[in-house]
Amino acid sequence: MPSTPTTVRSDLEIARDVSLLPIVEVARRVGLEPDDLDLYGRYKAKLPGAVRDRLNPLPDGKLVLVTAISPTPAGEGKTTTTIGLGDALARLGHRTVIALREPSLGPAFGVKGGATGGGHAQVAPMEDINLHFTGDFHAVTSANNLLAAMIDNHLHQGNVLGLDPRRITFQRTIDMNDRALRDVVLGLGGKVHGVPREAGFCITPASEVMAVLCLASDLQDLRERCGNIIVGHTFDDRPVRARELEAHGAMAVLLRDAIHPNLVQTLEGTPALVHGGPFANLAHGCNTLIATRTALKLGEIVVTEAGFGADLGAEKFLDIKCRVGGLQPSVVVLVATIRSLKMHGGVARADLAVENLDALERGASNLRRHMHVVRDVYGLPCVVALNPFPGDTLAEIAALESIVAREGGRMVPAEVHARGGAGGEALARAVLEHLDGPPSFRFVYEAEASLATKIEQIAMRVYGARGVTYGAAARRELTRLEATELATAPVCIAKTPYSFSHD
Amino acid sequence: MPSTPTTVRSDLEIARDVSLLPIVEVARRVGLEPDDLDLYGRYKAKLPGAVRDRLNPLPDGKLVLVTAISPTPAGEGKTTTTIGLGDALARLGHRTVIALREPSLGPAFGVKGGATGGGHAQVAPMEDINLHFTGDFHAVTSANNLLAAMIDNHLHQGNVLGLDPRRITFQRTIDMNDRALRDVVLGLGGKVHGVPREAGFCITPASEVMAVLCLASDLQDLRERCGNIIVGHTFDDRPVRARELEAHGAMAVLLRDAIHPNLVQTLEGTPALVHGGPFANLAHGCNTLIATRTALKLGEIVVTEAGFGADLGAEKFLDIKCRVGGLQPSVVVLVATIRSLKMHGGVARADLAVENLDALERGASNLRRHMHVVRDVYGLPCVVALNPFPGDTLAEIAALESIVAREGGRMVPAEVHARGGAGGEALARAVLEHLDGPPSFRFVYEAEASLATKIEQIAMRVYGARGVTYGAAARRELTRLEATELATAPVCIAKTPYSFSHD
Amino acid sequence: MPSTPTTVRSDLEIARDVSLLPIVEVARRVGLEPDDLDLYGRYKAKLPGAVRDRLNPLPDGKLVLVTAISPTPAGEGKTTTTIGLGDALARLGHRTVIALREPSLGPAFGVKGGATGGGHAQVAPMEDINLHFTGDFHAVTSANNLLAAMIDNHLHQGNVLGLDPRRITFQRTIDMNDRALRDVVLGLGGKVHGVPREAGFCITPASEVMAVLCLASDLQDLRERCGNIIVGHTFDDRPVRARELEAHGAMAVLLRDAIHPNLVQTLEGTPALVHGGPFANLAHGCNTLIATRTALKLGEIVVTEAGFGADLGAEKFLDIKCRVGGLQPSVVVLVATIRSLKMHGGVARADLAVENLDALERGASNLRRHMHVVRDVYGLPCVVALNPFPGDTLAEIAALESIVAREGGRMVPAEVHARGGAGGEALARAVLEHLDGPPSFRFVYEAEASLATKIEQIAMRVYGARGVTYGAAARRELTRLEATELATAPVCIAKTPYSFSHD
Amino acid sequence: MPSTPTTVRSDLEIARDVSLLPIVEVARRVGLEPDDLDLYGRYKAKLPGAVRDRLNPLPDGKLVLVTAISPTPAGEGKTTTTIGLGDALARLGHRTVIALREPSLGPAFGVKGGATGGGHAQVAPMEDINLHFTGDFHAVTSANNLLAAMIDNHLHQGNVLGLDPRRITFQRTIDMNDRALRDVVLGLGGKVHGVPREAGFCITPASEVMAVLCLASDLQDLRERCGNIIVGHTFDDRPVRARELEAHGAMAVLLRDAIHPNLVQTLEGTPALVHGGPFANLAHGCNTLIATRTALKLGEIVVTEAGFGADLGAEKFLDIKCRVGGLQPSVVVLVATIRSLKMHGGVARADLAVENLDALERGASNLRRHMHVVRDVYGLPCVVALNPFPGDTLAEIAALESIVAREGGRMVPAEVHARGGAGGEALARAVLEHLDGPPSFRFVYEAEASLATKIEQIAMRVYGARGVTYGAAARRELTRLEATELATAPVCIAKTPYSFSHD
Repeated sequence: MPSTPTTVRSDLEIARDVSLLPIVEVARRVGLEPDDLDLYGRYKAKLPGAVRDRLNPLPDGKLVLVTAISPTPAGEGKTTTTIGLGDALARLGHRTVIALREPSLGPAFGVKGGATGGGHAQVAPMEDINLHFTGDFHAVTSANNLLAAMIDNHLHQGNVLGLDPRRITFQRTIDMNDRALRDVVLGLGGKVHGVPREAGFCITPASEVMAVLCLASDLQDLRERCGNIIVGHTFDDRPVRARELEAHGAMAVLLRDAIHPNLVQTLEGTPALVHGGPFANLAHGCNTLIATRTALKLGEIVVTEAGFGADLGAEKFLDIKCRVGGLQPSVVVLVATIRSLKMHGGVARADLAVENLDALERGASNLRRHMHVVRDVYGLPCVVALNPFPGDTLAEIAALESIVAREGGRMVPAEVHARGGAGGEALARAVLEHLDGPPSFRFVYEAEASLATKIEQIAMRVYGARGVTYGAAARRELTRLEATELATAPVCIAKTPYSFSHD
Repeated sequence: MPSTPTTVRSDLEIARDVSLLPIVEVARRVGLEPDDLDLYGRYKAKLPGAVRDRLNPLPDGKLVLVTAISPTPAGEGKTTTTIGLGDALARLGHRTVIALREPSLGPAFGVKGGATGGGHAQVAPMEDINLHFTGDFHAVTSANNLLAAMIDNHLHQGNVLGLDPRRITFQRTIDMNDRALRDVVLGLGGKVHGVPREAGFCITPASEVMAVLCLASDLQDLRERCGNIIVGHTFDDRPVRARELEAHGAMAVLLRDAIHPNLVQTLEGTPALVHGGPFANLAHGCNTLIATRTALKLGEIVVTEAGFGADLGAEKFLDIKCRVGGLQPSVVVLVATIRSLKMHGGVARADLAVENLDALERGASNLRRHMHVVRDVYGLPCVVALNPFPGDTLAEIAALESIVAREGGRMVPAEVHARGGAGGEALARAVLEHLDGPPSFRFVYEAEASLATKIEQIAMRVYGARGVTYGAAARRELTRLEATELATAPVCIAKTPYSFSHD
Repeated sequence: MPSTPTTVRSDLEIARDVSLLPIVEVARRVGLEPDDLDLYGRYKAKLPGAVRDRLNPLPDGKLVLVTAISPTPAGEGKTTTTIGLGDALARLGHRTVIALREPSLGPAFGVKGGATGGGHAQVAPMEDINLHFTGDFHAVTSANNLLAAMIDNHLHQGNVLGLDPRRITFQRTIDMNDRALRDVVLGLGGKVHGVPREAGFCITPASEVMAVLCLASDLQDLRERCGNIIVGHTFDDRPVRARELEAHGAMAVLLRDAIHPNLVQTLEGTPALVHGGPFANLAHGCNTLIATRTALKLGEIVVTEAGFGADLGAEKFLDIKCRVGGLQPSVVVLVATIRSLKMHGGVARADLAVENLDALERGASNLRRHMHVVRDVYGLPCVVALNPFPGDTLAEIAALESIVAREGGRMVPAEVHARGGAGGEALARAVLEHLDGPPSFRFVYEAEASLATKIEQIAMRVYGARGVTYGAAARRELTRLEATELATAPVCIAKTPYSFSHD
Repeated sequence: MPSTPTTVRSDLEIARDVSLLPIVEVARRVGLEPDDLDLYGRYKAKLPGAVRDRLNPLPDGKLVLVTAISPTPAGEGKTTTTIGLGDALARLGHRTVIALREPSLGPAFGVKGGATGGGHAQVAPMEDINLHFTGDFHAVTSANNLLAAMIDNHLHQGNVLGLDPRRITFQRTIDMNDRALRDVVLGLGGKVHGVPREAGFCITPASEVMAVLCLASDLQDLRERCGNIIVGHTFDDRPVRARELEAHGAMAVLLRDAIHPNLVQTLEGTPALVHGGPFANLAHGCNTLIATRTALKLGEIVVTEAGFGADLGAEKFLDIKCRVGGLQPSVVVLVATIRSLKMHGGVARADLAVENLDALERGASNLRRHMHVVRDVYGLPCVVALNPFPGDTLAEIAALESIVAREGGRMVPAEVHARGGAGGEALARAVLEHLDGPPSFRFVYEAEASLATKIEQIAMRVYGARGVTYGAAARRELTRLEATELATAPVCIAKTPYSFSHD
C-alpha cells in the first residue's frame, strides 16, 4: 500500500487549482432545487427517492456508452474519456449528465487510481470520492457482513435450516486490499464463538450485495434481491436464501441511503452521478441502474462507461443491465490508445516509446474484433476514440486512422486529458451524429433461451469461440440450474479480461 | 439479531411526533452560522477544524458529569438522564450543550438500544444516529483495518522488521456483533494469501483506533497517536509500532472527517455533540475529547456522561480523559434506580415489582460506595438523581431519599423519560447550586507515580481493594513496562463492570 | 469403520481350521536355521541383515510377476492368484517363495480386505498381518513424522534455512483412514506451539518414507534416500532436503528393524516374504526390493505381484523397481475375471450375474491392451489366468479362452480360491513353460533419456496416448527439473488406475 | 531433537560390554518355560494371558515402592535406584522381579533419557526398549487415534448423537515431541474432509488410552474401560462415551498384544517387567497393573517405582493403583540426592559443586515432608536412599544422614550407578528389614467419600494445604459430578510436580 503515484498527484494539483461550484449550483444546471438534495458537505449530495419519483414521468435522454479495447498495463483512459466527452457535450450546449462507478477504497490506496479520471477531465472532489465519499461502500459492506454474521449466528443457534457449514458460498467482504482475509478459518475459540468453518472475504466491489445494489430499481426491489441471495446449501442439497434467515429487511435498512445516487461535478462543472462500483470481471461492472435511469431523466445526453473491454464489460452492460433496466444505448465509443494496441501487437512495455507500425497493425486485430461485436452483434454505431499520449507519432496516428477507416469506421482523437472538454469537441461531434438515428440495439440472446444457449451465444458471438464444451461436472450443474427459477436469468460470465483467446 | 424491542419502538413513535429543527437553526443557538457547518443531510452536521480553531480562545463552560451506580440488567437510564438534564438546563435559560457517545451499529441491531436516550429525553434523528450516522465508525473501522492489512502485508513481503506472527496483538475490527470472527486463522490458501496466523476481530467500539480517536486533540495529534500504536513484538521481543509500518499517515487520512464532532439536537432542540464511542470496559468509555472541548466553548454548561459505573467509567473519565484533556468537572450526577438497587440487594429480576425496603437498604451500599469515591477520592460535589420507574413505591422512594440524606447527600427525582426537560428541572436546579463553587477536583494518582503506585491507588481508593498482589508473570511485565516510556502514561484498567468485590 | 464383511469372515474361518507350522519349520524349507531368524512370536520372523549378507553370493531364482487387467469394483483376485500360484509351484516340487506387500492398518478396518489373499490361498497368521504385524508400518509412520516434527521445529527455532512455511510439501502420515486429518492448520495456540501453517496427513502407504523404504537396498542406502527427501522450498525457491535438517540419521535408526523382510507362510506352508506396502497410484506399488531380492536368493522360483493394472502397477515394477534393483522377470501372469471384463464392457455391477458375451467381447479390449504392453513393449511372455467366479458360464469361459487364443496367448483357469495350490497346478505348469527361455525383458525408456522422453515413452507406449502436451507451467517445471540431478531418475507417474483413456 | 547426551552414550558403552542372557534363560529364573513366552527377537518377550492365568493362584510376593523427593533439574535417579535395588536383592539370593514403565519414543530423542536406568544399573536391550520395543506405544497410539477418527467420522456422517464439535475433549495422540500438533484445526478442505473443528494431539504417555491400559486387569476389562471413555458432550450437554460410537471393540483388538507385559533383564540378568508408560503429572504415572500383579506372582520381592515425587507420583500409586489393583506395598524407598536437596534449598544449578550445608538443611524440609506423608499418612515404613554424586562432600553426606536420623529415619547410600547390584546391598538389607512386618498401609480417603472430601483429604493431608476453596464454576462442576457414577471413582489430581506450595 504505497503512496499514490506521481501521475495521480499531478491530477490532484490540477484539481486543486479549480474552484468547484457549490453542488446546489451544479444541481440547478439540470433543474434541481437545493431542497431536492441531501447534502454531504458542500460539494456532494444524494438525490433522494422522492425526487426520483417526481422525475419519473419525464422522457429519457440519449445514452452514450463508452468502453475500450481489451485492457493492457499501458492503460486506455476510459473514465477520462467518458468525463471529457461529457464536458465537451456540455460545452456544445447539450444538457449532459455523466454516470460513473464509485471507486473502491481498497485499490485507491494501491496503484490503480484513475477512477475519477485524470488531467483536465476529472470528477471532483476527488479525495472525498476516493475516500469514504457518501458512505455507500461502507453501507454495502455492512449489509453484506450482517448477512454473513446472521449465517454464522444461525449455525451457532442450532442450525434449524440444516445449512452445511462446508457449503456456505456467501462471503464476508471488506473495502480493502487485504489478501490475508481471502481464506480464513473462523468460528474458533470454543463453544461461544460459533461454529468453525472455512470462509473468506472478498473486496467490496466483488461482493454480492454490491451486485444486487447496482441492479435494483428501488428500495423494495433491493430488499427482494437481497432476500434472493443464495447463501449456501443444506446437508440435503437445498439452496438457502437470505430470506430464510430473515436478513433482507435489516440489509435493506442498512442500504437505505446507499441506494440514492450521488451527485458531484466535473472540473468544468458538468453534473456527474457517481454511484455503485462492482468489479467487471465478476459482476456486471458498471454504475447502478438507478443512477443511469436518473441521469437519463436529468440530461438530454448521458455518457456512461462499462467495465473492462468491449467484449466483457460492454457485454454485461448490454445484455444484463440494459435488459434488466430497459435501457437503449444509441452509440458506443470505443477508446483505444496507440500504446495499448502496440502491446496487443507484442511490444514490451519498455519499448512502447519506439514507433512500431507493424505491431500497431497486428494489435489492431483486437480493435477490429471489438468494433465487430459492437456493430454486428449488438447493432450499434461505434465511434473509435483515440486517447493520445505524448509519445504517439504522427505516422502511428495516421495508420490507426486508416485501419479504422478500412473497417468502415471513424477514429477521432480525444485530447481531454490535456485540454478538458475543449479537447473532446471533435469526439462529441462524432457522437452527436449518431444520436438521432432510429434505435438499432439488439441483445445477443433471448431471455427465454436455455442457459446453455445463452452461454453458447455469448461465447461464440461475443468472445468468438468456435463452440462450448463442458466437463461432466459442469454439465451436471447446468442441468440442475435449468430446472430452477434461475433458468431465465441473464447469464454473467466471469473471465479474466485480458484476451480473446479460446479458453 | 432480532428486531428492536418494544420500548425502543415506542421511543421511535415519540421521536416521530416531534418536528426537528433544521440543524442550521440548532447551531445558531450556540452562535454558529450555516457556513460553519459541514452538512450531512438536513439534521446532522460536522463542525470542521477551522471553526473549532476559531472558537479556541473563548472561555470554557462548566462541566457536569453524569454517571451511575454499578449497572444491573434492570438498567439505570444514564444517557436518558444526561439528555433530560441538558434539556432542563436549557429550559432554565442556560446555553447548554450535551456531549454523548455515538452508538455502535453492532449493538443497535441487538438488544441494548437506549444509546440515544429514551422517552421524551432523546437525541435525534435517532435512526440516522443508530445506523451509519456521519460515517465515523466506518472510518475508524477502515483506519484500523488498514493498519491490520499493512501488518499482514509486511509479513507477506518478507517481514523486514522481524515481527513474530504469533505475537501480533493488534486486531482487526468490525462494527457488527459477529462472534464467529472473534478468533480466526487467516492468511490461508497458499503462498499468495499471506502468512497463516491466529488473529481476531473486535467490535469497533473496542478497537484501538477508536480509543486513540477519542483522546486526540487534533488531526496531527491523532496521526501521532496512530503511529504510537503497538502492533506486536518482534522475534527478539521488541515492540513494533504502526509508525514503523508507515501506516499512520494513511490512517489519519482515513480519519480526516471522523475527527470532527457531530452536531445533532434533542427532541427539545438542545444542541448535542455526539462523537466517538469507545467501550467503557476496555477503553475510557466516553465521547471524544474534541467533542467535550468544543462543547465547553459553545455552551455555558456542558452535560456529559461517563460509561459503566462511577468507579469504572467515571474513574477513566476523571483520571484519563480529564488529565489528558485538561478538563475540570464541577459536579457529578449519580443516577440510580430503585430497581437496580434492589437487584444489588439480592432481588431477582422477576421479583422487582414487589416493594422490598430491606433489599433496597442492602443494595444501597453500592450507591454509598460510589458517593464516597466521587466526594472523598475525587473531591467533587455529588447529586444523586433518581430515575423513577412506574413500579417504584412511595415508601421505597422515601427510603432512598433518607439513605442519601444520611450520607449528607441529596437525592432528586429526574422524571425526564416521562416529561422531558420539564421533568428534569429539579435535578437541574440541584446541579446549578454546585456550578459556581471553587474548583475542587483532584486526581487519584500523580502522573509521575510508578505504574505500581497508580494501579494500587486505583485499586485501593476507587475499587476499595485492601491491596494489590501480582503473580510472578505480572510482576515481571510490570517491571518491564516501568523501564519504558509508558511509565508515565495514565493507567486504564479493564474490569467487568458488575462488582466492587475484591478480585 | 464397520466390521469386516462376510467374505473376509469366512476367509478367517478357513484360516482357523489350518494348523500353521512354526515359522522355524517354514524357514527350514528354504535352508534357514532357527538362529537366522528374529522371531516375533511363533509364526512371524524377520530376516536380519547378517543373514541376507550371507545369502548374497547365491544365484537368483526365477521371477514370476503377477498383475491384472485394469481394476473394477468387481475385483480381480491378484493377491489370491499370486499365493495360489506359489502353493501350486511348491506342490509341483519347486522351492518357491512368495513376495507380497504388507496391508495397511487403515483399509484393514474398512471394506477392502483381501490383502492376505482369500479362500484357500492365504498367507497367515492373517490377523497379525492385518494388525500391527512386526511393526513396520509403525516404524515408517514414526520416521516420517519425526522428519515432519523436525521441519516444524526448524521453523519454530528461527528457520535458519529460510523454509517457506507455505511451500512445505512433505506431509505427516497416519496408518488410519482419518479424513479429518487430510487438511489441517497446525502450529496454533500461540508462541510455544510452533508456526501456524496449512499441512496435511496422508495414509502411511502413501507416505514418502514408505516409498523410499521399498526401493532401498540396505540401511545405509535407506539413510541416504531419507536424506534426499525434498521437504519443501525456501523463500528464494531452493529445494530443502531432509539431510539439511539432519533428520536422516534418526530416521534410519527408527527404520532399523523395519528394513528386514518378514517371513510368514501360506495356509499350505509355502514361505512368503510380506514386506513394505506402498500405494500403486502414488508410489511404485509393490513389496520392498530387499524382500524380492532375498526371495530370489531363497527360492528357485519367486512369485510376486505388482499393483493396480498391467499398465500402471506393472509399469512401475518393471521400469522403476527392476531398474533400481537389477531384477529380470521371466514371465508375467495377467489375472482377469469374467465379471471385471463384463464391467469393462459396460455391464452394471447389479447385472453381472447375467451371461453377456457381447459385453465380455467389448471389455476384452482392456485385456488385449495389457497383453500387448507385456509382450510387445516389455518383451515378456504373458499367461492369462482366469480367476473363476461361481456365476461365470461355460460359454463365457470358452469365449474368453478363444479371445486370448486369437491374440496368440493362452488362458488358464486358476481355481486357487476354492482349492488352494491344487487348483493352481494348471497355471503353474503354464508358467513353468516360460521359465527356462532366454532373458527377453527390456525397459520402455533408457535411463539416460530426457525426462520429457521418458514421459512420452510411457504415455505413448504403455498408456497408448497419441502424444503428450504440457501446459506452460508444467513445461517450465520440466525444464527446471532437467537441470537437476533428478534428470536421470526413473519417472513415476501418478494416475487413477481406472482407464486407458487419453487424459 | 538433538542426539543423545554424553552420559547416555556412556550408559550405552557400559551396556554393550555386557553379554545379555537369552530371554528364555532369564524367564527360567522365575520359573517360566520357553513355551510360556511370545518372543520378540532374542532378548524380549511378552507373557501371554494364558501364562498369567496359570500363575494366578500363586501367592503374591512383597512389594517395594521406590519414589523420590520433589524433582529438580539436577535429577534424582529413581529408576536407576529401582533397578540397582532389584539387582542387589537378587544378589542376596531373593527371587526378585523389577517392574518399570516403558519409555516414550518422544522424549527418547530428546534430552531426558534415563528411562532405562543408568551406569551399572540398567535394563536391556536399552536401544530396543527406547525405540519401538514390542510395539505397545504404537498400539496405544493406534487405538487412541482410531477412536478419534471414529469421532470425526461420526460428525461427518450426519452426527446422529448430536456431539458438539466444539466440546470434544478426546484428543489424538502421537509418540513424538511435536509441538506443532498440540493445537490444530482439522477437517478442512471442503465437504469430503469431515467437519472443521479445533483439536489437538497429546503425546502418547499422556493419552487416555495409555491411562486405561495401565489400570486394566485383563482384555475384557480394558475393552470396557475403552468403552467408558468420555469423548465429549452433546449439544444438550450429555456426555458421550466411546461405547456409543462402537469403538471399544476395535480398540481392544488393536490392544490385543499390548496388554501383555514385556519381559527383559537388567545388566545383571535380573528379570524386569517393563510395561505401560503414562505420565505422572496427568495420569497415575506407573507401569501397568497387569505387570505389577504378574511380577508379584513371579517374584518373592517386587521392586517398582512411582512417578514424580512422593506426594504426586506415590499418592497416585497408593490411592489409585493400589486401590484398583488390591496392592499392599510393604515399604517405601525415598530417593534423594545431595544436589537436589541443595537446589530445593536455593542453590543455582551452576553452584551445585560447592559444599553448602545451609542449603542442604533448608532443602531437606522437602525430604522431611515426603517422609511424613509416607509414614504418617499412608502408614508405611520409609527408607531414604542417597543416590551419591561425585561432587557430594563427606560433610554433606553426614549432615543428610543426621537430618534423616533426627526424623527417626534411616539414610542408606545406594551406589548402584557406579557399582550395580553390589553397590545396592546396604539399601537392600535396609529394605529387607521391613518386609516381614504386619501390613500397615492405609488409604488417604475412603472410596465412599464424596468427591469434595477426597479432594480435601489429598490436598490437606498429602499436599499440606490449609484447605480447599473452589471458584463458582468449579463448585458447580463438582456438584454435577457428585450426581454421576463417577462419584465413587478415585480422584486423580493433575499438578505440576515442582512444589509443595499452596496453590
